Amino acid sequence: MTKQDVINQILGKNKSSDYYGTVTAFAPVNIALIKYWGKRNEILNLPVTDSLSISLTNLGTTTELSVNNNKDTVFLNDKKIDEHSDFFNRIVNFVDLFRPDPEFYFTVKTKNDIPTNAGLASSASGFCALTNALNKLFSWNLDHQHMSIIARLGSGSACRSIENGFVYWHAGKQQDGMDSYGETLSYKWSELTIGILTVSDKPKVISSRKAMSLTSKTSLLYKNWSERISHDLKSLLGSLKEKDMKRFGEITESNALSMHATMLDTKPPILYWLPETVQYMREIWNLRENGISVYFTIDAGPNIKLIFDKKDSNTIKKYFPEVKLINIW
Amino acid sequence: MTKQDVINQILGKNKSSDYYGTVTAFAPVNIALIKYWGKRNEILNLPVTDSLSISLTNLGTTTELSVNNNKDTVFLNDKKIDEHSDFFNRIVNFVDLFRPDPEFYFTVKTKNDIPTNAGLASSASGFCALTNALNKLFSWNLDHQHMSIIARLGSGSACRSIENGFVYWHAGKQQDGMDSYGETLSYKWSELTIGILTVSDKPKVISSRKAMSLTSKTSLLYKNWSERISHDLKSLLGSLKEKDMKRFGEITESNALSMHATMLDTKPPILYWLPETVQYMREIWNLRENGISVYFTIDAGPNIKLIFDKKDSNTIKKYFPEVKLINIW
Repeated sequence: MTKQDVINQILGKNKSSDYYGTVTAFAPVNIALIKYWGKRNEILNLPVTDSLSISLTNLGTTTELSVNNNKDTVFLNDKKIDEHSDFFNRIVNFVDLFRPDPEFYFTVKTKNDIPTNAGLASSASGFCALTNALNKLFSWNLDHQHMSIIARLGSGSACRSIENGFVYWHAGKQQDGMDSYGETLSYKWSELTIGILTVSDKPKVISSRKAMSLTSKTSLLYKNWSERISHDLKSLLGSLKEKDMKRFGEITESNALSMHATMLDTKPPILYWLPETVQYMREIWNLRENGISVYFTIDAGPNIKLIFDKKDSNTIKKYFPEVKLINIW
Repeated sequence: MTKQDVINQILGKNKSSDYYGTVTAFAPVNIALIKYWGKRNEILNLPVTDSLSISLTNLGTTTELSVNNNKDTVFLNDKKIDEHSDFFNRIVNFVDLFRPDPEFYFTVKTKNDIPTNAGLASSASGFCALTNALNKLFSWNLDHQHMSIIARLGSGSACRSIENGFVYWHAGKQQDGMDSYGETLSYKWSELTIGILTVSDKPKVISSRKAMSLTSKTSLLYKNWSERISHDLKSLLGSLKEKDMKRFGEITESNALSMHATMLDTKPPILYWLPETVQYMREIWNLRENGISVYFTIDAGPNIKLIFDKKDSNTIKKYFPEVKLINIW
C-alpha cells in the first residue's frame, strides 16, 4: 500500500479537477499531551498507539498555494528554499501525490508562527495547512476526517492539526490507515493555558521521524510503551472530564518524560534536552513544591510547554517573564 | 528472614568473641558499569539482576572502629554526627547486628575521600569499610564472600567494594541471599582510566534506596530492565575480554542512560541530573564525534564518571581541566 493508493482511494476522480489560481490556508500547531512515538507503518505514518493533543488555535502555519508553470518552488518565511534541502524535498514528495499531470507544478509559500523543525510541531501545522490549501485549490470539499488522513501522509502528527481544541488520533487497525485520523473531542476547558518556553529555536539534530524509528527498533524499554499509553490515555480522559488540573498535569508531564525515557534507552541514545531544559524542569518542580500548580510537556526537542490554569497566568509570567502564553479558547 | 538471621548464619558462635581496642579499615568506592537498580528483597538488599562494577582502588572510605563504654558515637570526616540524623541511624542499625551484648557500644570514625551521599557511592565504600573494620575488631577472619554478604546488608552495592578491579555481583536466587555477593573478575585492563567530573557534592534529594523502590513499583518500562541487563552484561564481558574500548564504553554509557530512563518513567518522575550534567554529556558526545574515544556513566546523582584509555589522559585533561583522574591498576 503506497501513499498514492490512499490518495486515489480518497480523491477518486476528483484528483484532476479544476483549480483556483491562488489559495491560502491555515492550520494550528498541536501539542501532544499523550505522545505519539513509534509507527506501525512507516510509509503511511500509522502509529503504534492512539495519542491526544491540544491545538494552539492561532499559532501555526499559513500556507499560500498556487500553480506554477515552470517548476516547484517553495518559500519558507518569505525565503526561497534550496531545491536540495530536506525541507524542499519533503514538500515536493508530498505534492507529487496530487499533480493532475506530471508537468503541473506548485508554488508553496509557507509561514510559521513558530521556529521550524525545533520540536515545536511546525511540520504538523505545515503539512496540515498544505493539505487544507490543496483542498481549496482543487475544490475537493473533503471532510475533516479525510483531510486528516491526507495530512498524516505528510507528517504523522499533522493529522491532529485539522481540528481545534482537544484532538484524539485513532491509531486504527486497517492496513490502508483509513481508520487512523484525528478527531476533535467535545471537551472545552477555557481555563487551561499553555505557555511556551523556547530554549532553542535551532533545528533538531535528529528528526523525530528517525528518532522514533530508532527507538522502536532498539529500545527494550519501549516494549511497554503501548501499555503505558493505554493507562495514560484513560487517566487523562478522566481528568479532562473532571477538569482536574493536578491529575491532568501529572499525567501529561509523566507521559512526556516516559517518551524521553524510551529515547534514552535507544541505541545510540537520543537526548533532545539541553542544560536549560533541565533547568526549567527543576524550576517547575520547585514551583509545584511551593504550591503553584504548573506542569510541563516536552516534545522531540529541547523546548518546554507549560500547562496551568489561566488564573495563575500572572504568577507564571512573574517566574518566567520570557514565556509565550497561548490563547486556546 | 531478617538481617540478624543472616549474620547468625555467617558468624555462628563467633559473634561475641574477643575484640581489639581500635582497628582501622579501608574499602574502595565502586562504580557500576552495569547498574544495580531494583531489589528482589528490600530487607536483605537482594537485587533483581546481576551487576558489574569497577573499584576505584585508592579512593574510598577509611573507618576507624573502637569500643565505647557509654553510647554509640559516629564521626564523619572528623565531625561528630547528630544522633537524630539518617546517617547516624543507618550506621547504628547496622552495628546493632554485631553487638556482643546490648550494653556494648561502638565509636565509628569514618572518612570519605569523596563527597558523601552525592551519588558517588560513599555508602558502598562506607559500609564495606565498616564491615572490614568489624571483621578486624572481632577477629572473625571471614573470607571475602562472607564479608561481601555482610556489607550488602548495610548497603546493596557495598558488597562490590570488597574487591579491587572488576567485580561481578551475583543476584543469586536464595531467599537468605547467601548466593548474592560480589566476586572479583580475573580481567585486568591497565589502560582503562576513570575520571570524575563533580557537578554537585550536595546530598541527593532522594536516596537511591527509595528511588529504586519507586521505580520498580511504578515504572512500566522497568518491566524490561532485567532483559536489558542480561544483554548488556553479556556484551560488556565480551568487550572486557577483548579490551574493546568502543564497545565497552558504549555499553556502559547506554546502560547508565537506561537506568536513568526507568527513573524518568517512575511516578512521580525521578531526575538526578542537573543542567551541568546534560552539558557534560553533550560535550562528551561532541568529543566522540571529533574522534576522541571517551564515554561516561552516571549513578544515582548528577555527577559524571568518564571512561577512556590512559593514552588519552592529556586530551581529557585539556577539555576537562576540573577532572579528577583515578588510578585503578
